[in-house]
Amino acid sequence: MISPDRFAALWRSLLPLGRQPDGGYRRFSWSATDLACREWFVEEALDRDLVVDGDGNGNLFAWWGDPSTGNAVLTGSHLDSVPSGGAYDGPLGVVSGLLAIDVLRERGSAPTRPIGVAVFTEEEGSRFGVACLGSRLLTGALDPERAARLVDRDGVTLAEAMHAAGVDPAGLGADARRMAQLGTFVELHIEQGRALADLDAPVGVARAIWPHGRWRLDFTGEANHAGTTRMADRHDPMLTFAHTVLAANKEARLRGAHATVGRAAVTPNATNAIPSRVSAWLDARAPDEAGLAALVEAVRVRARERAGRDGTEAAMVEESVSPEVELDKELRDAIAASLGGAPVLESGAGHDAGVLAGHVVTAMLFVRNPTGISHAPAEQATDVDCAAGVNALARVLWELACR
Amino acid sequence: MISPDRFAALWRSLLPLGRQPDGGYRRFSWSATDLACREWFVEEALDRDLVVDGDGNGNLFAWWGDPSTGNAVLTGSHLDSVPSGGAYDGPLGVVSGLLAIDVLRERGSAPTRPIGVAVFTEEEGSRFGVACLGSRLLTGALDPERAARLVDRDGVTLAEAMHAAGVDPAGLGADARRMAQLGTFVELHIEQGRALADLDAPVGVARAIWPHGRWRLDFTGEANHAGTTRMADRHDPMLTFAHTVLAANKEARLRGAHATVGRAAVTPNATNAIPSRVSAWLDARAPDEAGLAALVEAVRVRARERAGRDGTEAAMVEESVSPEVELDKELRDAIAASLGGAPVLESGAGHDAGVLAGHVVTAMLFVRNPTGISHAPAEQATDVDCAAGVNALARVLWELACR
Repeated sequence: MISPDRFAALWRSLLPLGRQPDGGYRRFSWSATDLACREWFVEEALDRDLVVDGDGNGNLFAWWGDPSTGNAVLTGSHLDSVPSGGAYDGPLGVVSGLLAIDVLRERGSAPTRPIGVAVFTEEEGSRFGVACLGSRLLTGALDPERAARLVDRDGVTLAEAMHAAGVDPAGLGADARRMAQLGTFVELHIEQGRALADLDAPVGVARAIWPHGRWRLDFTGEANHAGTTRMADRHDPMLTFAHTVLAANKEARLRGAHATVGRAAVTPNATNAIPSRVSAWLDARAPDEAGLAALVEAVRVRARERAGRDGTEAAMVEESVSPEVELDKELRDAIAASLGGAPVLESGAGHDAGVLAGHVVTAMLFVRNPTGISHAPAEQATDVDCAAGVNALARVLWELACR
Repeated sequence: MISPDRFAALWRSLLPLGRQPDGGYRRFSWSATDLACREWFVEEALDRDLVVDGDGNGNLFAWWGDPSTGNAVLTGSHLDSVPSGGAYDGPLGVVSGLLAIDVLRERGSAPTRPIGVAVFTEEEGSRFGVACLGSRLLTGALDPERAARLVDRDGVTLAEAMHAAGVDPAGLGADARRMAQLGTFVELHIEQGRALADLDAPVGVARAIWPHGRWRLDFTGEANHAGTTRMADRHDPMLTFAHTVLAANKEARLRGAHATVGRAAVTPNATNAIPSRVSAWLDARAPDEAGLAALVEAVRVRARERAGRDGTEAAMVEESVSPEVELDKELRDAIAASLGGAPVLESGAGHDAGVLAGHVVTAMLFVRNPTGISHAPAEQATDVDCAAGVNALARVLWELACR
């Protein structure tokens, strides 16, 4: 068992990296901050005599035992963040994995299966736009040539960013040998809602991840002078954009789904010019795949209708879609039972666990987040709950690999 | 009289500066491009043996005759642009001023009043957010300490930008001595609508400039995860923003006024995060001041109402407002008559002429813009019409200063 103070000691060593003046984190993949986070991980792993190893996608693995013997048990998560994200989303799973190994060792457990802690590259998709970038590449869900050409907001490609970080992008792509070594993946993650807080439980288990995806919306019109252009003569894409934002919200509410427009870019973005273009991204999620498809189609139809009235064009292109993932029922039930009847939750958010679940037996643990806030500086968990999460993860790893 | 070819020769020498791949111009004040434009102006003025002189605000003046004798006639305009602006808005007035002096000299005219060509700093307000920055400072309409602290999008202050350009910002502020030397200002400008095209006339005269202004809108909510936050739990400022954009458009149409939201900034601007803040700028204009005030108040009320429903905050702050400016009636009528009955037009756009009109007898000439498009790369004028503009301006200057 680990104490809250021991959790806090390791946790605090990671906190200064990428912290912004507003208290949020900016840890974009392959940035200087990301490299510092990776270095932190490698040092902590080496301090524990774990064997550190990376694949060609920048995913890192720290092994206790030799993974080539197969049927390995992997835990871990990611270290990258959304812009101005919280401290816990991702890093909590990595820190908990390292500490869970400490717990197992201190109780003298000898693993019968290799145990690894993973750090996956760019789970958030905040720099190159594709969520779960590292795990998708590893499992072959994303074409490495397409990935190499992905660009960030400054026009830098993933290949260029990796090259600048000293990593050869020629290694991008599926790694069947490594995947064949894995038997089980257990990802621990901060909860991104208030379900555990409402249930008064520190730790829960995931049942399924909602189907979800992102779509790029491009509204194009005609740039013109804000002062001199008659209202009737305008082709203003800002109006089409604004209408679509409200339509997406309404359609999601009608369907019990989630729709968010959290990112937009205006061209030329001048106070006294009607824009020529507004680009925006729709994040849509629903309890089932038919509901998600219907939601997205409704938004598309309403954007087009309004574009017809505004004299603009509305284009909508799918960037990435993840189907519903139900996590392994047997493992999930076993974990819930071994944790004394931990609550079973849905996840509206995607995770690397959702990608790996198509390949290996996968489970997820959640740690209570009293604010329910996520992807923002106010995201929170107590040291007591985090220590409970580590101890729960250690128990799960023991059940899987040491008993 | 000047030929279209001679107009084109001087015009083309300025065209490469600040041209973007899309054919638009980016000439922000105190940028390297702006400094190159200023250098171009100084060289052209010196080639004509004009005496070049600047005030503490970066406004440049090229004199034929000694302005200290007083009652000077000034023409000119500005060289800065909006982002991705057209080639003509501003520079046409400067080029025409230089060429009009050539016309007067070639016909052997000897001015009885000093004639000057001005280049005013940052008429567009595209870098530091205050339109007519140079003329407002010169005339005392803008506090120099406030101006020095204005920041661009990168957080650079006007004082820092001037310092970097080698100009001492301590000189910012009103210049009463210089203003006292001026008797008349005549600004030539490309038309920003299609009125002259519809009337089949190459040149027109301005009657008045609509009252207009810009307001900053800040919509604040609560950043949260786009996937996991229930729709009912959200405080999403993007919704309040979108509603306000549509409300501003509708209120302007109802009032025969103009409202535009052409600039917005989203924080943190991540696809999978509900924003914590959306900032936007409202550009509003109306045929009279009561109409403008009513429009802005209606937008404010509707933004607040929607914020109440969204659980967000909506704040609206005036950044700059210009009252209606009626240009000098006697001069306007004399110009229209001397140009053989040139059409008299309203201007929905602000100009340095609108600022100077409070201090000296002021007039404006417009040159036909066949597309009517302004603040965009498609802004256009033919060399034939531009030469007609130069010849009209030369005639006006001759009437004022040589007859």
